Amino acid sequence: MSADEEIPAPGTDSGLLSPVWAGTPVEAVTSDEAWLAAMVEFEAALATAQANLGAVPQGTAEAIRTAGSSGRLGLVELARRGREAANPVVYFVKRLTELVADVSPEAAGHVHAGSTSQDVLDSAAMLVATRALTLLRDDLGRIRAALAALSREHRTTPAAARTLTQHAVPTTFGLRAATWLTLIADAHDRVGALLDARLPVSLGGAAGTLSAYHDHLRAAGVPGVHPELRLVELVADELGLAESALPWHAARTPIADLAGVLAFVGGALGKFAADVLVLSRTEIAEVAEPAAAGRGQSSAMPQKRNPVLSTLVAAAARQLPVYALVLQQAVVTEDERPAGAWHAEWQPLRECLRLAGGAAHTAAELAEGLVVSAEQVRANLVLTGTGLVAERLSVALSPDLGRRLAKETVTRAVRSTETGVPLAEALRLALKEAGHADGLSTPLEQLLAPEDYLGAAVPLTDRAVHRATTTTAGDPSPAATDNPHPYTRPTDPTPSSHDRED
Amino acid sequence: MSADEEIPAPGTDSGLLSPVWAGTPVEAVTSDEAWLAAMVEFEAALATAQANLGAVPQGTAEAIRTAGSSGRLGLVELARRGREAANPVVYFVKRLTELVADVSPEAAGHVHAGSTSQDVLDSAAMLVATRALTLLRDDLGRIRAALAALSREHRTTPAAARTLTQHAVPTTFGLRAATWLTLIADAHDRVGALLDARLPVSLGGAAGTLSAYHDHLRAAGVPGVHPELRLVELVADELGLAESALPWHAARTPIADLAGVLAFVGGALGKFAADVLVLSRTEIAEVAEPAAAGRGQSSAMPQKRNPVLSTLVAAAARQLPVYALVLQQAVVTEDERPAGAWHAEWQPLRECLRLAGGAAHTAAELAEGLVVSAEQVRANLVLTGTGLVAERLSVALSPDLGRRLAKETVTRAVRSTETGVPLAEALRLALKEAGHADGLSTPLEQLLAPEDYLGAAVPLTDRAVHRATTTTAGDPSPAATDNPHPYTRPTDPTPSSHDRED
Amino acid sequence: MSADEEIPAPGTDSGLLSPVWAGTPVEAVTSDEAWLAAMVEFEAALATAQANLGAVPQGTAEAIRTAGSSGRLGLVELARRGREAANPVVYFVKRLTELVADVSPEAAGHVHAGSTSQDVLDSAAMLVATRALTLLRDDLGRIRAALAALSREHRTTPAAARTLTQHAVPTTFGLRAATWLTLIADAHDRVGALLDARLPVSLGGAAGTLSAYHDHLRAAGVPGVHPELRLVELVADELGLAESALPWHAARTPIADLAGVLAFVGGALGKFAADVLVLSRTEIAEVAEPAAAGRGQSSAMPQKRNPVLSTLVAAAARQLPVYALVLQQAVVTEDERPAGAWHAEWQPLRECLRLAGGAAHTAAELAEGLVVSAEQVRANLVLTGTGLVAERLSVALSPDLGRRLAKETVTRAVRSTETGVPLAEALRLALKEAGHADGLSTPLEQLLAPEDYLGAAVPLTDRAVHRATTTTAGDPSPAATDNPHPYTRPTDPTPSSHDRED
Amino acid sequence: MSADEEIPAPGTDSGLLSPVWAGTPVEAVTSDEAWLAAMVEFEAALATAQANLGAVPQGTAEAIRTAGSSGRLGLVELARRGREAANPVVYFVKRLTELVADVSPEAAGHVHAGSTSQDVLDSAAMLVATRALTLLRDDLGRIRAALAALSREHRTTPAAARTLTQHAVPTTFGLRAATWLTLIADAHDRVGALLDARLPVSLGGAAGTLSAYHDHLRAAGVPGVHPELRLVELVADELGLAESALPWHAARTPIADLAGVLAFVGGALGKFAADVLVLSRTEIAEVAEPAAAGRGQSSAMPQKRNPVLSTLVAAAARQLPVYALVLQQAVVTEDERPAGAWHAEWQPLRECLRLAGGAAHTAAELAEGLVVSAEQVRANLVLTGTGLVAERLSVALSPDLGRRLAKETVTRAVRSTETGVPLAEALRLALKEAGHADGLSTPLEQLLAPEDYLGAAVPLTDRAVHRATTTTAGDPSPAATDNPHPYTRPTDPTPSSHDRED
Repeated sequence: MSADEEIPAPGTDSGLLSPVWAGTPVEAVTSDEAWLAAMVEFEAALATAQANLGAVPQGTAEAIRTAGSSGRLGLVELARRGREAANPVVYFVKRLTELVADVSPEAAGHVHAGSTSQDVLDSAAMLVATRALTLLRDDLGRIRAALAALSREHRTTPAAARTLTQHAVPTTFGLRAATWLTLIADAHDRVGALLDARLPVSLGGAAGTLSAYHDHLRAAGVPGVHPELRLVELVADELGLAESALPWHAARTPIADLAGVLAFVGGALGKFAADVLVLSRTEIAEVAEPAAAGRGQSSAMPQKRNPVLSTLVAAAARQLPVYALVLQQAVVTEDERPAGAWHAEWQPLRECLRLAGGAAHTAAELAEGLVVSAEQVRANLVLTGTGLVAERLSVALSPDLGRRLAKETVTRAVRSTETGVPLAEALRLALKEAGHADGLSTPLEQLLAPEDYLGAAVPLTDRAVHRATTTTAGDPSPAATDNPHPYTRPTDPTPSSHDRED
Repeated sequence: MSADEEIPAPGTDSGLLSPVWAGTPVEAVTSDEAWLAAMVEFEAALATAQANLGAVPQGTAEAIRTAGSSGRLGLVELARRGREAANPVVYFVKRLTELVADVSPEAAGHVHAGSTSQDVLDSAAMLVATRALTLLRDDLGRIRAALAALSREHRTTPAAARTLTQHAVPTTFGLRAATWLTLIADAHDRVGALLDARLPVSLGGAAGTLSAYHDHLRAAGVPGVHPELRLVELVADELGLAESALPWHAARTPIADLAGVLAFVGGALGKFAADVLVLSRTEIAEVAEPAAAGRGQSSAMPQKRNPVLSTLVAAAARQLPVYALVLQQAVVTEDERPAGAWHAEWQPLRECLRLAGGAAHTAAELAEGLVVSAEQVRANLVLTGTGLVAERLSVALSPDLGRRLAKETVTRAVRSTETGVPLAEALRLALKEAGHADGLSTPLEQLLAPEDYLGAAVPLTDRAVHRATTTTAGDPSPAATDNPHPYTRPTDPTPSSHDRED
Repeated sequence: MSADEEIPAPGTDSGLLSPVWAGTPVEAVTSDEAWLAAMVEFEAALATAQANLGAVPQGTAEAIRTAGSSGRLGLVELARRGREAANPVVYFVKRLTELVADVSPEAAGHVHAGSTSQDVLDSAAMLVATRALTLLRDDLGRIRAALAALSREHRTTPAAARTLTQHAVPTTFGLRAATWLTLIADAHDRVGALLDARLPVSLGGAAGTLSAYHDHLRAAGVPGVHPELRLVELVADELGLAESALPWHAARTPIADLAGVLAFVGGALGKFAADVLVLSRTEIAEVAEPAAAGRGQSSAMPQKRNPVLSTLVAAAARQLPVYALVLQQAVVTEDERPAGAWHAEWQPLRECLRLAGGAAHTAAELAEGLVVSAEQVRANLVLTGTGLVAERLSVALSPDLGRRLAKETVTRAVRSTETGVPLAEALRLALKEAGHADGLSTPLEQLLAPEDYLGAAVPLTDRAVHRATTTTAGDPSPAATDNPHPYTRPTDPTPSSHDRED
Repeated sequence: MSADEEIPAPGTDSGLLSPVWAGTPVEAVTSDEAWLAAMVEFEAALATAQANLGAVPQGTAEAIRTAGSSGRLGLVELARRGREAANPVVYFVKRLTELVADVSPEAAGHVHAGSTSQDVLDSAAMLVATRALTLLRDDLGRIRAALAALSREHRTTPAAARTLTQHAVPTTFGLRAATWLTLIADAHDRVGALLDARLPVSLGGAAGTLSAYHDHLRAAGVPGVHPELRLVELVADELGLAESALPWHAARTPIADLAGVLAFVGGALGKFAADVLVLSRTEIAEVAEPAAAGRGQSSAMPQKRNPVLSTLVAAAARQLPVYALVLQQAVVTEDERPAGAWHAEWQPLRECLRLAGGAAHTAAELAEGLVVSAEQVRANLVLTGTGLVAERLSVALSPDLGRRLAKETVTRAVRSTETGVPLAEALRLALKEAGHADGLSTPLEQLLAPEDYLGAAVPLTDRAVHRATTTTAGDPSPAATDNPHPYTRPTDPTPSSHDRED
């Protein structure tokens, strides 16, 4: 197929089937066009580095950039001729070289010197990933800030905790938000750590020995036994990428690291969305998504307002770790460069970046605008009434009745509330039946107040907010460096607070 | 975002990162544009069916088609405004209705009557899937024919069988090809069975009760208690889809069936590609991919010819069952229509269809042009020389030596060939040491000929070819109907052949 | 490690970490002991078949059975020495042969004649799977019957349908149950279809040519050119398994079929469980799990009754399709028998069988005892009051106001109910504002009754019940044979009912 | 089911279907018995911590340990009664309390005080994981050392590099081993980092507020406003686990981290195994697995020696990341404690730990005993003769002929070697045809020597060995701490070597 033949039109990559990223910032940095531009960048950086070593003329990189941005590369034909080599780079290099020749015949002789397809595509992938991760970090940072504020705002708002779908004991809405916050901060830190360490450039040559780079540089009279090692440094610096210890054609740690982090981002965002979906159920209605003109409408039902932001995030969270699995499995390769495992990485990597980026952008809007109905939180809390503190009653009665009898007495009392008897009354009766004259040290009414049975909900919330807000000040993600494992010993805002006598 | 605002350009969906389908026929039928067109088709078919029942004016469908093909729907804005509803249909209906109003203000009042987003998108998905499966069936049919021919051609070509990577016993190249053939025929039959049964239309209305369809038809005076059930039939017929027993908004059997079949297509194609990759290794070289100008070239190494077709197929086979997993998991939904599980289906379904279609198209070229080097097959067979028949020798010596001693004697003889002694000689020595005077009923040299130790390789090959070539004559896939389980009792070409005395 | 050395004790496979199957019937048929017994069965069946052909003495199979059931095989050592061969069969054959020699030295010379490890393990796997699937079919049949009864019982019980977590329009509880029923019937049919077609025996010999079987039979004077093909038939019949067209060492269709069906069983059961979990939420409380002494208790909270059955099923549904993925991916093998792909199948296959069996057994108890609170279903229905029929109102007003104005009027009216105004009143006001004097053909109050807005919910339920209850009468699963695709054209109980004028 | 009823025997967890871990050290630390023991440890540690705060009598923990190790807990009944609560802890606590009562009636009143099922099981899981990871770290350390030695040994051994299954350019066997080494060192560092940070204890109480712990301690007169926060510290210290910032019932970062690392361990080991499998193919034969009596035998073929260690590892590598996916997906939970997502974690976590542990143990034996055939490495290198340096020739001729003509000339020359012409001769002819008198600065014969075309293979190998051997001296894994991202800027053994003029 030549450039002159008629090529049927390819589709438009609009996100019609993935509204979670359609039109969000990550779309533009992960498109086919963006990958192609990153491939040009790599070739230009290679030429720049080779020029700095004196091996190619100084204008080569500029000619590559000019040719590469001429709009004449022909994305579609390039994609289709990718079938000839099982990757798009071979024809890309041929076409780029032709275009460079139009600009500078001399420069054309120095394009892609010593390089190989995988160097180009892997390096381009790391550039694309770096840009997508940068957007992702920003949006996770927004969510982190919003959830920290939400946790603080509802620091002492009592709410019904739910376990195995049932009301359990009281908690606070603040602690619930602090749990979301903790996951998001963990995800944010991990993305930050990847960016801080920078993703690696790929430079290995045909089979990871850098041999053609070596010969090229030596033939051009570049001094040193192994000037190609210096070349790797220069290309990495030029692109803002890291240098890897070994060429990673067949040592896919960088891909596995991306997979692990992006899968976790999906999990963290998915947990937040899952809870918003539950809490915005018609019967629960503790939260509502931020309203916006046109949003959440049904094509059929005029009265409905659907939780669309959390639906979008939930849909992404279902896909992310699965696509990441393809990347995890691609670590198992054969030979110096494999036939298939590498080729299977590109599309799922792009999907992971897009879905994570789109989901974080969507969740940022959700977190910043989430409407909590304090009234409905309270209404749900009192729905099971005093039953939420049954655990507490068991504890309170244990010293007098022993644990087993205490639990039985409380259970009996709770059961009889099903017939409409108030718990306090039922409990007095049950205590009497258990042979225990009502003489509790703490007044029964106080024991029955859910807002008095919050354990450490408040200091735990403070702790989570403290961690999430202090470790990132003035820096995108120092937390990741200082404390990559968020479950190591926590720092309290006022460390000795829980030892202080009241 | 209104239609007037500037919208940044979306990407081009060229398959740059998925050369396996770039430019192949499946690309065009699975693009965003193709999904959008299928959505228009659904709305038109709905209007046609409603018109046939007398509920909407006869020209409605035509107006919808005219408006839908006007090029003014605005794919990109439509995709982006999909974020408002978590699906692209709500805005699509609004926009389509506006365009219909330009054509026929009366018709505009009847667009999407009684319908809901999921009806539109699920039905469109089934239309897209039907088209992609049809292409897939054709290409699997090509592979089936090519591999049947290959099996016949190499029906008696002795070859070294490999198990756990090691030469094991002799087989035939024909039986190897017949194993590929069997998997491909199984896949072909399963795709055919899906198409023969037809995928189902989706018509349920807002929550699966068809209630708005019902009210619309009744209000329009359509007779019958439940004219909406008749509507479902008519829409299904109009679109060439099947009618499902119940609306399947939350009963995702059709999606799970697609997932299962497409994952298996990936497996069947992947096995073929995996063997081609092994057999075309430099050291093995039993097969070569069909040559084509420019194909298989390396960007670095002028002498190389890479097995690119099987690499493309192998890459697809790694992704297919994983994307299909998202679909399998999406069967677990909540409520009458879920928040997230449904939304997570669209993109992986498209990817599965594309990858399967592209991989089959690629593998068809591979199967039709695969070059088998009889010379190299022979060279590999004799590489381990007579060692391949060690199993046979054990059997042959057992009557005389007993099984254990027979196996030990053979093992000892085989080991001593490592020092260069020919096996026949080593065996005679070992037999003598074992106290057995050389008096085998079958001459030793005959026992040592690999081409004489083929068991049932030839009749098994005949059987597989017979099954693959007779069950589909005159019909795309009756095999699927007659015998959906290819491992049930086989039919031999000449049934009594293996009982015939020689 | 010899049998005399001290071997540290292995663990107990009690299901501590998988309560979904702990102690259920599937446990016993999938244990290590059950696999080992199936391996003995295979060797006995092989000897029986060879004896029937006259190739081995008649008592061989009996001696194998005696030795194999002596309790002296030594499961643990056998498992550990499986490391020597990457499978447990090599040492199993050695040990079995020793034990047979104790019973009959002559028989010992005929154990495993012509066979190979994969024949033994694959055939044993199919025996184990057949037994597990049989239990699974029974339990799915119980669920099918229970859900059909539930659908009938609540055939006309109006309920709030939920879409994207929000109340949408009315449905019936019967249609909800019928949706569960449809998925379960689909799963039941697919399991039945696998059992009806029977899983295949594996008999291929060292590399799929049956060559050693051939030589053995021929050496023993068995007539026919290919008596080994007859052997395959006899072994299959002896074990109650099917015969495959080709040895399937490297053509894993049977495994892929099992994977597809078991993943779908997980999905069907998971959907049922997911809805029960939602519907038993404290705030929703439409259903409760069947009570049983001790069940659902919390270790901490005496008042709680957790939905444990659906939790167990939900946990299994999360794992099943993922483990099935390993099986789907194992279709891609290399060579005549692969190094790794086959070995990766055994444990996930067992887990899939166990999880599906345990989950179905658990779900059967759930389906048979599910308690529906008609009172709470009603309470939820009226919670959003007449808002559920907003869609209907739009339809009803459209003839008079036009669709757009109708929808806007209804939306305005619904919004004003948020301030406490009854919908009927709000609507009259909105109609007046829209310039429409209240003169609807249908009285407003009737339009506002949710129980009058059910569309085809009742006949659809009847249809689903009819399909689920008539297609399996007198046979475990003829449905699967007659109509493998449940979404093909449905049969109504009284076919013309929906065309009958009322 | 009471303790007195007859309970059918459960299976033996022998690893029959998972020989990769059968009998290896990880088996004992991950068995049902090991999980149960860890649950007892948690209860004892809780009592110890509470005693140290003065809330329970000092002997409580001792009574728990005595009762828990009495052999009377009844694993099987406990597992089965786990069905009543969807987890085994509820009945475990009941049974443990009974047994403690036999030892000390007073202590029985203090068992599990304030605790909840998830605290027990999550903490037990972290104890089990810590032990399994410790074994894993040791075995990865052994592999690291062995591969470092192998890399050094073959530092300069020229070998044919293979890309897309074809011979590409020369490399060294040392660089190949160094690539394995790099992946293993990355995996080792990641496991070490998890262990160094310690896995977290789980202490949250019924819903993550620690409320019952709080009430218990306060009721017992323990001073401080929030003595429960001090309790968390003490229990963590007692168990050697870390303290998490928040209770992680619904913030599953620790599980996701384990999943990511264990999936990567599978990838790293799998790459090593995949290459060993390729390199030990009969036709390639560059390596052989370490011989051991009985190992690698076939049940059918006396002459075969199968690569069983790499097969075992490869089978584990196929399963590991898939099971890990269940864990990644379990991050998406609902509520304060979910119904299903948590319950789905236990078995796949155990499988991941077992498979990783068994695979590493197996790979350690493989790495320590791998036999490299220098002779066969050489034979393969010369198989494609001088074609391996075609890339180099292009480079060398480019200054004289220009790049395009150079590549064409070399390609033409390489092609004509297919007819048997030696490359040197063919090249001279092609040069002449290209109008270039043979006057290369480097003698042609030197350009054609594969061992002279190694680029930076040797210094890269030195660099990888240096990194892998210096960063772990005197400490299990400081590398992880100092440089968690192994692809950040490398340190050369003699940093300036590649700048030194030769």
